[in-house]
Amino acid sequence: MTEELIQLFDYTGTFAFTVSGALAAAEKKFDLFGGLFLGFVTAIGGGTFRDMMLGNTPVAWLHDLTFFYIIIIAVILTFLFRPTIIRFPKALFFFDTIGISVFTIIGIQKGMQAEIHIPVAIMMGITTAVVGGIIRDVLCNEIPLIFHKEIYATACLVGGITYTMLLLSQVPESITVLLAALIIFTIRTLSVRYNWTLPKFK
Amino acid sequence: MTEELIQLFDYTGTFAFTVSGALAAAEKKFDLFGGLFLGFVTAIGGGTFRDMMLGNTPVAWLHDLTFFYIIIIAVILTFLFRPTIIRFPKALFFFDTIGISVFTIIGIQKGMQAEIHIPVAIMMGITTAVVGGIIRDVLCNEIPLIFHKEIYATACLVGGITYTMLLLSQVPESITVLLAALIIFTIRTLSVRYNWTLPKFK
Amino acid sequence: MTEELIQLFDYTGTFAFTVSGALAAAEKKFDLFGGLFLGFVTAIGGGTFRDMMLGNTPVAWLHDLTFFYIIIIAVILTFLFRPTIIRFPKALFFFDTIGISVFTIIGIQKGMQAEIHIPVAIMMGITTAVVGGIIRDVLCNEIPLIFHKEIYATACLVGGITYTMLLLSQVPESITVLLAALIIFTIRTLSVRYNWTLPKFK
Repeated sequence: MTEELIQLFDYTGTFAFTVSGALAAAEKKFDLFGGLFLGFVTAIGGGTFRDMMLGNTPVAWLHDLTFFYIIIIAVILTFLFRPTIIRFPKALFFFDTIGISVFTIIGIQKGMQAEIHIPVAIMMGITTAVVGGIIRDVLCNEIPLIFHKEIYATACLVGGITYTMLLLSQVPESITVLLAALIIFTIRTLSVRYNWTLPKFK
Repeated sequence: MTEELIQLFDYTGTFAFTVSGALAAAEKKFDLFGGLFLGFVTAIGGGTFRDMMLGNTPVAWLHDLTFFYIIIIAVILTFLFRPTIIRFPKALFFFDTIGISVFTIIGIQKGMQAEIHIPVAIMMGITTAVVGGIIRDVLCNEIPLIFHKEIYATACLVGGITYTMLLLSQVPESITVLLAALIIFTIRTLSVRYNWTLPKFK
Repeated sequence: MTEELIQLFDYTGTFAFTVSGALAAAEKKFDLFGGLFLGFVTAIGGGTFRDMMLGNTPVAWLHDLTFFYIIIIAVILTFLFRPTIIRFPKALFFFDTIGISVFTIIGIQKGMQAEIHIPVAIMMGITTAVVGGIIRDVLCNEIPLIFHKEIYATACLVGGITYTMLLLSQVPESITVLLAALIIFTIRTLSVRYNWTLPKFK
């Protein structure tokens, strides 16, 4: 069951990340190809870099056509119904946050399977969650949002540490996954509502 | 014979892509190292990402010194004879278009050898053809040209679909390669002449 | 002994590169996460791309937690003591130059272990030394410094050629490493003092 839930959330996150890429493309007046490319790299950029660094090749999304179709559909829907989609920013935020939660957990799992140290496995989790959005912003010729706004990555970090600590304490995986995802989800939601930010360099 | 023709076109494309990178470097007033770096990543960026994603490592150009020498020579020629080179944009366009045609086909072939699904194999073809130019533009601090101008990637897509469909229908490889390359070449040439563009997001 | 010295210099360079990334983050007013991310990619970006291209995966820094801790500490120190750190640009330059010297040599060694041709092995050395800084600048939305200023990469090239030539002439490794590092160090230092630059495209 845990497996299938992670799978489902992975697809949900892929959809939400793609939409965020396609919306960025629309804002920059890219054409349909630009939207597809940006949708793809936003959705699969993090997992791709994680897998290339770990040596899990061919990288994950090349094996599972479902990702491919979800991304194509998400870009086309954004292309056709953008005005409607941007009227529901909370829904987008909701799916996106499910996405980063599950991306973080999947990244840590893959890191642990590759038998790297726990702290770098957690970094693989954060990488999975943040690198797609960073590439999206670079391709739009913007400074990555995540470097100066939102505590998004901090949520992934806290959730990731919780996940590995519970796992090492022999807590059953289904509970660790759920708790970690909940923590990431909660921190991010609260941080956006209450405008929490990280300290800046002085 | 097909093999050797692909090889030859691969070298031609590498040369043309390098020149496009070196010209971009010149426009931005980079120094010789900047020109070499930009020439290299433009020429080998697409194939490198493809190979890293597929796990074909060491990546292709590390095995074959010919690429190395072609790139060095192309940068030096651009460095010495830029005014002459830019007086023949049609020649550049011609070689560049040969390049994307053959890069697309090689990318698809490598994808199929790695036994990934056909649609993602076609994406590996497009990746091979477009990613070098995207990195070039990012390094020049510009929004990638291909996201808002020209239907270049669409030509690769149509050619790539044709290639795999003919191949799966048991048409001999020499014919499929030639036909696919011809289609990519024709669509791109017509699209530039008649100013075809893809629809933009509204 | 040579091994351990290289190891020590590798750590020194990692520290200096991280500080340069964190300082760039501070200048752009990134938050702590932005500083950590930029510190990391500046320090490990070059080696990561080298290892992904060569197929040395999981990439080097995932195996050795020391890198992880050095980077974290370097970012935190920069975060806390930035005003003090930037008052000693010569110290920074000194450590940074040790870094590029040893990164170049390590890159060449890894290339030779992967049995690629000598010229591309030297390129792997230069890649290790320069790519982290290039990614840092791209993430800050700047044109990479190294494309239009300083002859840093040229120093790596001359040192790299020296290194491989001495090695192929059976000179003991300890001497080749020291000499190559010294050459890189000297050329870079002189080039900065006397404002040497590479010719630009005309």
